[in-house]
Amino acid sequence: MNGAEALIDTLVRSEVDLCLANPGTSEMQLVSAIDRVPGMRPVLALFEGVVTGAADGYARLAGKPACTLLHLGPGLANGVANLHNAQKAFSPVINVVGDHATYHRQYDTPLNADLEGMARPVSAWLEAGRTPAQLATLGAAAVAAAGRVPGRVATLIAPADAAWTEMPADYTPAPVVPLPALPHIDSAAIEDAARAIRAARNPMLLLGGEALLGDALINAGRIAARCGLRLHAETFNRRVQRGAGRLPLVFLPYRGELALELIAGVDLMVLVGARSPCAFFAYPNRPSELVPPGCRVLPLAKPTDDVAAALADLTAALDATAAEPQWQPHALAPLDAGPLDTRRIAQAVARNLPEHAIVIDEAITGSMPAQQLTIGCRPHDWIQLCGGSIGNGLPLAVGAALGAPGRKVVCLEGDGSAMYTAQALWTMARESLDVVTVIYANRNYAILNFELERVGAGTPGARARSMLNIGSPNLDWVALARGMGVSGTSVTTAEALDAALARACAEPGPFLIEALF
Amino acid sequence: MNGAEALIDTLVRSEVDLCLANPGTSEMQLVSAIDRVPGMRPVLALFEGVVTGAADGYARLAGKPACTLLHLGPGLANGVANLHNAQKAFSPVINVVGDHATYHRQYDTPLNADLEGMARPVSAWLEAGRTPAQLATLGAAAVAAAGRVPGRVATLIAPADAAWTEMPADYTPAPVVPLPALPHIDSAAIEDAARAIRAARNPMLLLGGEALLGDALINAGRIAARCGLRLHAETFNRRVQRGAGRLPLVFLPYRGELALELIAGVDLMVLVGARSPCAFFAYPNRPSELVPPGCRVLPLAKPTDDVAAALADLTAALDATAAEPQWQPHALAPLDAGPLDTRRIAQAVARNLPEHAIVIDEAITGSMPAQQLTIGCRPHDWIQLCGGSIGNGLPLAVGAALGAPGRKVVCLEGDGSAMYTAQALWTMARESLDVVTVIYANRNYAILNFELERVGAGTPGARARSMLNIGSPNLDWVALARGMGVSGTSVTTAEALDAALARACAEPGPFLIEALF
Repeated sequence: MNGAEALIDTLVRSEVDLCLANPGTSEMQLVSAIDRVPGMRPVLALFEGVVTGAADGYARLAGKPACTLLHLGPGLANGVANLHNAQKAFSPVINVVGDHATYHRQYDTPLNADLEGMARPVSAWLEAGRTPAQLATLGAAAVAAAGRVPGRVATLIAPADAAWTEMPADYTPAPVVPLPALPHIDSAAIEDAARAIRAARNPMLLLGGEALLGDALINAGRIAARCGLRLHAETFNRRVQRGAGRLPLVFLPYRGELALELIAGVDLMVLVGARSPCAFFAYPNRPSELVPPGCRVLPLAKPTDDVAAALADLTAALDATAAEPQWQPHALAPLDAGPLDTRRIAQAVARNLPEHAIVIDEAITGSMPAQQLTIGCRPHDWIQLCGGSIGNGLPLAVGAALGAPGRKVVCLEGDGSAMYTAQALWTMARESLDVVTVIYANRNYAILNFELERVGAGTPGARARSMLNIGSPNLDWVALARGMGVSGTSVTTAEALDAALARACAEPGPFLIEALF
Repeated sequence: MNGAEALIDTLVRSEVDLCLANPGTSEMQLVSAIDRVPGMRPVLALFEGVVTGAADGYARLAGKPACTLLHLGPGLANGVANLHNAQKAFSPVINVVGDHATYHRQYDTPLNADLEGMARPVSAWLEAGRTPAQLATLGAAAVAAAGRVPGRVATLIAPADAAWTEMPADYTPAPVVPLPALPHIDSAAIEDAARAIRAARNPMLLLGGEALLGDALINAGRIAARCGLRLHAETFNRRVQRGAGRLPLVFLPYRGELALELIAGVDLMVLVGARSPCAFFAYPNRPSELVPPGCRVLPLAKPTDDVAAALADLTAALDATAAEPQWQPHALAPLDAGPLDTRRIAQAVARNLPEHAIVIDEAITGSMPAQQLTIGCRPHDWIQLCGGSIGNGLPLAVGAALGAPGRKVVCLEGDGSAMYTAQALWTMARESLDVVTVIYANRNYAILNFELERVGAGTPGARARSMLNIGSPNLDWVALARGMGVSGTSVTTAEALDAALARACAEPGPFLIEALF
């Protein structure tokens, strides 16, 4: 058994059994170890941003981390943007990054780089093994550091010689490190929050992270019913269970003015797995903090705390255990026939969303109508871009499909965003993943036209417009998908989109719909 | 005039007049400034790896830097791999990276990241402006820090509020900072090298960087003729002038064994703009240093020194000024008809390469035959991946076409490598760039099959093979190109490739040929 085999064996025994990979020469021992050690499923992606974004999506559905396999500093760097997104979502990811043999780094050959420096900004835990025994021990430590959901990004650097060297003769498999429990919110804080809620005129819970799933979310609904308070989710969420028979939860809008309008008059905002709301960007003469005047912000549980237990305890403290939440009825808007716009796309999606579908939302300017018009459709999960770095959606769809086999994934994806990591389509085809991708093909970085005005930069001229529109030439998404082995169709009307979605949702496997508008 | 306008104005006055851009909201003031300040040409790319790789390619041909425009930490991170490649090529690049307004960073909103930490590993110079006046001053300093070829990567962080705030009333345009001269090799070192060359039995010059162009290369040829010594170029080079009527220069092979075989018996290796040769990767029981036994390595000029002056001085010291170099005759191998392989592809390329074409070589396992079989074709420039991070070729082609208008660019590109940054095709179409791309479509990470054996990892089983082959599904490169607005054709024989290349080289604008084998 060499260091590579000991590392893969340790990961498998720690229940890490999916490896999202884009390896190179320095990882060949690890590739070979995956061949020989049973229990690790390798899935290849043709670009590292797909690898890391898929690891994020997998964690959100499976609740546990996958490992990645990346090629030295530059290979890791290609995955950094989606590791950033994973960190902001508190998705656990374990990166295994090959490096040159320890004695070879001194020669500073072409691929040599400041690998640690590249990894550090997106790694809550970062270690390099110098010996085969260290690879096994650090593998177990990386699993513990990444944790489950909510978790962190842990990066383990594996030099080639540590991977190819035989383990010491006396090696016994590295013990699995137990996961630490999530920090518990103490009863004084729970009582304090309960008192504040009772005393407030217009209190609100802002929910994030694990508060948006299962019993935690139901408890929030009980509190809302018992105390007559408002519930909102953050603007961008790791995963929300919503739809008919669940809570009618409205996300805080992206635009600060709309968010402040929505929560105007709130005098107490209790944060449960959420952070105090802020504008996504700064704008001249607009506030960064999105808190109504005079509103007290009470942080009860951070995203990394035991949010579900905090909500259960708060429910008891508020005597809401038997309260009946207000459930969202099944209700769909009719389909307006005619040329597509973001509202009609959302109507068609809502009508066709299969029960327990997983929606990946990177529709950007199309997101708000999609969220509003799907609130009453069949129960589903809603998955969002949490770190703002576009190019997360298609990889998230890959990972969600791998993490929740048997459920349909519907990926709502802006055309500009899709182009960052379109290679994800190839992995969907290779693995026959059950993903329907809807490309919002408006041939613009539409949000930037809107933001240009908001930052006070005036009316764009020809040179500015050339950096905002992505037509000329037009992207042909059906051709792009076909180029990567995914079938697709292009539609321009609500009726055609409705029919295409009905077909695509009924059939297994990947399919792409270019929604032109 | 605001900070953004002052920065763009400073760059334009410093002769930086091309902006390769993938902006977001935090860069809207800079987008608007490019609109209003004359003299800066914006070119949009749909992914940051294209932006930075194109900046590298532009510098290699134009001899001076372009600026990039990137969106916060994650946007920069997407460009890091090709910035790594640019650094290893000593290509000057000026990154302008937008950031949140200074007072907004404290809120740690979704796109907030350790921007400095992400930039540092690939930035020889890194500064953040906090005021509009600093943006102008640091803009001039960034140009000086990046330099010309050979140059460095300089990164300037521009917070949104520094960009949108008006300049002080007394602002006078920031002075252009003069570029420092390249370090000169003193006459004692020249004399020492000349003595060593005269005394050696079998001396050799290893050339890199600026030694491979113009008078510097001709002087190397004079020295070789006068002293009967051998000339070689490094394995991976920023830019080499070669072909008929130039020097018959052989690059050191990628495979260490072949490199050592080629230079066996050399007893003196003088490094001129080159580094002492090393294996690209470490392999068990193979040497990292590729120097023949008993050979003295004499470092005369580093890649960042004044290599051209050093060669001129060495020519004089060796009394070789009047020597006539051995010129490469015009000589082409005949085209072998039949199914494509890397040799037949190279033959077809060699026959059709237009005079003064620029060849981008990221053909990986196809590179060596391509280099060998084009040595006698019409004079051309040869451009290589210097940092080993694949996905450089198509962006380099974009930048080379922008940096050398009127010259045909022929991009020899592995299918695996092409998938990292295929978005470059869209920019080729948008800007009508004169690039013929030949995709080496072997549907494998072919080099990894070869490397797996070399690292002693044994015969691959099914799981390992699934991480090495990129067929299943097959990529359809003609569809991918069409999806991004580039016409193309697929060929399987030498005759068909020859005909397609003849047509594509005769027509202006981008074209893609999928060479299936």
